Amino acid sequence: MKKSIGIGLLGLGVVSGQVASVLTEKADALAEMVGCPLILRKIKVLPQDLERPQAKMMPAQLFTTNDDEFFNAPDIDIVIEAIGGEKPALDYLKRALTSGKHAVTSNKEVIAKHGIELLALAHKHGVGLQYEASVGGGIPLVAPFKHDLVANNINAIYAIINGTTNYILTMMAKEGTDFASVLKRAQQLGYAEANPENDVEGIDANYKLAILASLAFQTKVRPQDIYREGISRLNSRDFKYAKELGFAIKLLAIAKQSNGVIEARVHPVFIPQDSFLAKVDGVFNAVHVEGDLVGKVLFVGQGAGAKPTASAVVADTVGAARKIAIGIGSVSTWKEISGKKIKPMDEVVTQFYIRLAAKDRPGVLAQIATVFGENEISIASAIQPESDEETKTAEIVIMTHPAQEKAMQKALSELKKLEMVKEVSNFIRVEDIEGS
Amino acid sequence: MKKSIGIGLLGLGVVSGQVASVLTEKADALAEMVGCPLILRKIKVLPQDLERPQAKMMPAQLFTTNDDEFFNAPDIDIVIEAIGGEKPALDYLKRALTSGKHAVTSNKEVIAKHGIELLALAHKHGVGLQYEASVGGGIPLVAPFKHDLVANNINAIYAIINGTTNYILTMMAKEGTDFASVLKRAQQLGYAEANPENDVEGIDANYKLAILASLAFQTKVRPQDIYREGISRLNSRDFKYAKELGFAIKLLAIAKQSNGVIEARVHPVFIPQDSFLAKVDGVFNAVHVEGDLVGKVLFVGQGAGAKPTASAVVADTVGAARKIAIGIGSVSTWKEISGKKIKPMDEVVTQFYIRLAAKDRPGVLAQIATVFGENEISIASAIQPESDEETKTAEIVIMTHPAQEKAMQKALSELKKLEMVKEVSNFIRVEDIEGS
Repeated sequence: MKKSIGIGLLGLGVVSGQVASVLTEKADALAEMVGCPLILRKIKVLPQDLERPQAKMMPAQLFTTNDDEFFNAPDIDIVIEAIGGEKPALDYLKRALTSGKHAVTSNKEVIAKHGIELLALAHKHGVGLQYEASVGGGIPLVAPFKHDLVANNINAIYAIINGTTNYILTMMAKEGTDFASVLKRAQQLGYAEANPENDVEGIDANYKLAILASLAFQTKVRPQDIYREGISRLNSRDFKYAKELGFAIKLLAIAKQSNGVIEARVHPVFIPQDSFLAKVDGVFNAVHVEGDLVGKVLFVGQGAGAKPTASAVVADTVGAARKIAIGIGSVSTWKEISGKKIKPMDEVVTQFYIRLAAKDRPGVLAQIATVFGENEISIASAIQPESDEETKTAEIVIMTHPAQEKAMQKALSELKKLEMVKEVSNFIRVEDIEGS
Repeated sequence: MKKSIGIGLLGLGVVSGQVASVLTEKADALAEMVGCPLILRKIKVLPQDLERPQAKMMPAQLFTTNDDEFFNAPDIDIVIEAIGGEKPALDYLKRALTSGKHAVTSNKEVIAKHGIELLALAHKHGVGLQYEASVGGGIPLVAPFKHDLVANNINAIYAIINGTTNYILTMMAKEGTDFASVLKRAQQLGYAEANPENDVEGIDANYKLAILASLAFQTKVRPQDIYREGISRLNSRDFKYAKELGFAIKLLAIAKQSNGVIEARVHPVFIPQDSFLAKVDGVFNAVHVEGDLVGKVLFVGQGAGAKPTASAVVADTVGAARKIAIGIGSVSTWKEISGKKIKPMDEVVTQFYIRLAAKDRPGVLAQIATVFGENEISIASAIQPESDEETKTAEIVIMTHPAQEKAMQKALSELKKLEMVKEVSNFIRVEDIEGS
């Protein structure tokens, strides 16, 4: 039995700072859980970090700017990485694992792109790699797939896993305002970054879905395997029609598995207003999982922020420490099932909402319907709610029955060529998630 | 490394039958996860069970009616108990653990009453006891408290953990019908048992809350420590007023912790219509947890049924098997924090809804208000929505500010003595759970 377990922290951002606080303030409770104290030995920082206020509140001897000093320290058992981004985090994690240290990370980009390789590296060196905080902040999402749901064949995951976009969509739905103005407000409130691309274009959600889908389906689902669309082209008129038709608009990360074929995509969707996910508003995250035994389970909580993320990082650290305390090294739980395939986006089947601006003349709907018919897309409803007398423009909203993406893309390009169609204003996929 | 891990099953009810199916049908996948096959060696049944259809579908040599043969079998490593009830399940679990076998149970009554004693027994004999299925079917609820949320001080748990009562309350709210008729329908649909007491009087929820609170607060919260009221005295008029006032009525299991003092109670409550829990309808369960780091997290799913329960039982079995496969015995994770206290119900503070029938005369509200005032209970609103011309009876609905239970009980008994008050028709506590 070890007398204590040493922790090394990489970086001193908001998450690392919070983790350091928890390790200090809850030291007694954590020691009780693990069976021996967890001691923060070193924080590896950049020279400029030493000038930051949180650095000045901690003992100077905790800090080092020297990589070798940090990674060669024999009294560090667990390295915590919460600096984010691919570089240098990936190299740091590799070095930690190669040095025989357990690692805990909150880095979604590194895990999404290199997680499986890192898990293999950990296993090779007889240590563990934990990454609960990489998806959904403090909401348990990785652990359920690793442990609690292992008896299930997972059929589907529907996830709201980006708080920034969910906040923007919630505001657009409530206020009827447009994307640009809500984004600006979200930036002022600190809910969106100055460069919002990572969130609003679905890149962040893409990384998180890659992690969840790889775990759930036990096969490599890489970020580039996931079709991705952001929310910037959504318009207040789409929200108006969604509401009238009984839907909410959410940016969902969706992964499905059927007969060993996986589809994975991140894009805005219409979902029924009475589904659980439709009711998840603001910066909350929610992950809806369907398993053959468990049926539907839903996990909801704050998906970001220093404290929720620290909740997961410290839990992972305690988990690693408990293993070290009783002398267990690597317990590799990710095993690849071979032979699974990723379905190309072209073959994905969904229903569609399409909003068009057309000339307000008799016969226009017939022409449009003909294009859909020729592409074997069946129309569920067509409404022509308003027309502009002055410009002689009619707005037409069409809901289709399930159709293949490829057929829909072809139909859309043909519609654009029709003389009667001024514009295909938008199209949004529809997911028929059941309500509770 | 063991070549295989032997499973023994106690009983052949719906859950055990489902567990046996999963162990057989998913044998390859489970073997892959554990590193060696899980083999169902024996099923201990009563003689009459052998006549049941599911028994006839399995090889006869799997069954035994002999306790000694079952518990002394050297090739059984894990005993699964899903027979329910206190006896003989408790004795069986003790015998399994004492024989050095790991145990997995879905038995809420045994765990609520004897869990801590059984965990100590398991530890003494170097084996594990898993009980994820004892609360909330397949929803991960035990594991989050044991692992994922350990860095948190848990402040509150609000749980809908009985599907039967949630179904009844959902129907009463939707249809405006009374308890008795909805219960009858629930019984016809198989959502309620012929003797519904365990569900409708909150006994089932009480057991489950005892388990969750003991885990969350790391102290013994026994069933008898939990105040309990069922739903049978709820009336359609209460649902009418709840709706008008912006509330839903749910049977909640509530546990809170503040400065080492714990309150735990199961009773119907008014909760804000826009809270997550208000939207959890039908047979779904939902547990809302508040931690100092994680903030609010919510777990939702089907809390009962053979498949969801088997999902948790098999996951626990895989967890136990993984430990056996790498040579780990007991990993005791429940540690009691001493010095915590249970708050007596008399001292609990909530808001209240009170519905009264009074004589329709001037001055009646003044008399009622005086009783509340003398007991230092502050009235938030009083409405007198309807009066019956014929009987000269007025119905009065009062919402209070937070008040102590003891003061409220005293006020209620004084109100009953007022000549002007014909009846205190109902009172329901109000929980101010925030919306999302």
